[in-house]
Amino acid sequence: MEIICVGNELLIGKIINTNATWLARRATSLGISVKRITVIGDNTKEISTAINEALNRSPRFIVTTGGLGPTFDDKTMEGIAKALDRKLAVNGQALKMVKQKYETFARQGKIAKAELTPPRVKMATMPEGAKPLPNPVGTAPAAKITIGKTVLIALPGVPPEMEAIFEDSIIPLLRKEAKGRMFMEQTIYADSIMESTLAPLIDNVMHEISRVYIKSHPKGQEGEPHIELHLSTTTTNIQTGKRRLRKATSRLSDLIEKAKGSVMAAEQ
Amino acid sequence: MEIICVGNELLIGKIINTNATWLARRATSLGISVKRITVIGDNTKEISTAINEALNRSPRFIVTTGGLGPTFDDKTMEGIAKALDRKLAVNGQALKMVKQKYETFARQGKIAKAELTPPRVKMATMPEGAKPLPNPVGTAPAAKITIGKTVLIALPGVPPEMEAIFEDSIIPLLRKEAKGRMFMEQTIYADSIMESTLAPLIDNVMHEISRVYIKSHPKGQEGEPHIELHLSTTTTNIQTGKRRLRKATSRLSDLIEKAKGSVMAAEQ
Repeated sequence: MEIICVGNELLIGKIINTNATWLARRATSLGISVKRITVIGDNTKEISTAINEALNRSPRFIVTTGGLGPTFDDKTMEGIAKALDRKLAVNGQALKMVKQKYETFARQGKIAKAELTPPRVKMATMPEGAKPLPNPVGTAPAAKITIGKTVLIALPGVPPEMEAIFEDSIIPLLRKEAKGRMFMEQTIYADSIMESTLAPLIDNVMHEISRVYIKSHPKGQEGEPHIELHLSTTTTNIQTGKRRLRKATSRLSDLIEKAKGSVMAAEQ
Repeated sequence: MEIICVGNELLIGKIINTNATWLARRATSLGISVKRITVIGDNTKEISTAINEALNRSPRFIVTTGGLGPTFDDKTMEGIAKALDRKLAVNGQALKMVKQKYETFARQGKIAKAELTPPRVKMATMPEGAKPLPNPVGTAPAAKITIGKTVLIALPGVPPEMEAIFEDSIIPLLRKEAKGRMFMEQTIYADSIMESTLAPLIDNVMHEISRVYIKSHPKGQEGEPHIELHLSTTTTNIQTGKRRLRKATSRLSDLIEKAKGSVMAAEQ
């Protein structure tokens, strides 16, 4: 999977990209690995270029976030249409979704008229061949487009909307693709041992116990080391995963203690 | 500027990419615009590809974060060398920096011997032609490499180290490039008006007052709208910037109130 996040607010450092982290964590936990995250601004050409670059790498899924709203700078659909060389047109099914939202708002007295103004129709405008996905939280529908072996999913940028559509419409696709794979992980902490001393010990354990990935994250300073060690594995069998992680954790702990470091399990 | 963040931990959603946000905010505030942020894993080929893609877009600066440490999965220097087709070699100046760190640790009794083990020498191994930048917080030096019109800067991933090197060694370069440009911004909130109703009002103000960019961020739901409006401009004159933002804010507030919405200034 590749993730493409659209929004000037991300490029000016106004907001932290929690959407990318949320999507990456959710996909990883379902056994789908994320290969790249790209952040670009609200610019049709930039969006189209990023989509085409991702398509050329042939990932199974491309998920975009942001740029689906009613304002002039919501340009994701335009960017996708440009990338795929497809026409942008009002999608009948999407227009029905949008219309129903405004009719409900009007009934609730939140707006005077449910009229489909151009900015509201814009939210139902999609590249030809797109399948709109209902937005249970907000107004703009998401979209799903299949291009060869890649499924492209355009989600809104507002986190509760993005998350709700992902849970409802995307997770079933990912589960099917993952065929029972799971991502399993464990964290331990090493103290009183420098990362440069730990490095060969990690190498040893990774060579000895296959399919366990170990990554060190220094949390203190090299002079006063406190190092998080993150062990992970992907498997279709929970017992196999547990056994691998247990074996690697125990072997690594032994080596660290032999090197006069101390090991602490992470609080669960 | 382009930012390239290296680290599997970002792609599995283990940590939020605060480094990218910090760098983007800091560069933007100095009048340097960030065009793209790319996140890739600890993989030499992926790093090299991402660097080459960024170089082809000819940004003035490329800043990478992560992958400079002593472990097997710290591969940024290798990836840069591959991208530039340069040899990787121990950099004498960098080795001196690393050596001094370990001699200090040894003097302080934090390690038994200051010996330059392979993982420690690895932190001084850089593509040919790189200029090491001192790391005032951690051990691994950063690196600066000039490729045509692009300056490539490789920073560590540990936030306090990344930030300290950026402040010490990179900010002077950015200031020189920005030639006095500043990014100025203001936020107001609109209530009781839907984003789809706001959209044409924003268009109007942006057409009327040039060089002010306005972006709406829905914080409530379309049915119960609470919308953040972020106004920004880049200028070399603080008075010009203030005047532009004041004019745009006042014009936009008038239009919102005419449309029966209410406006609130953001708390400073």
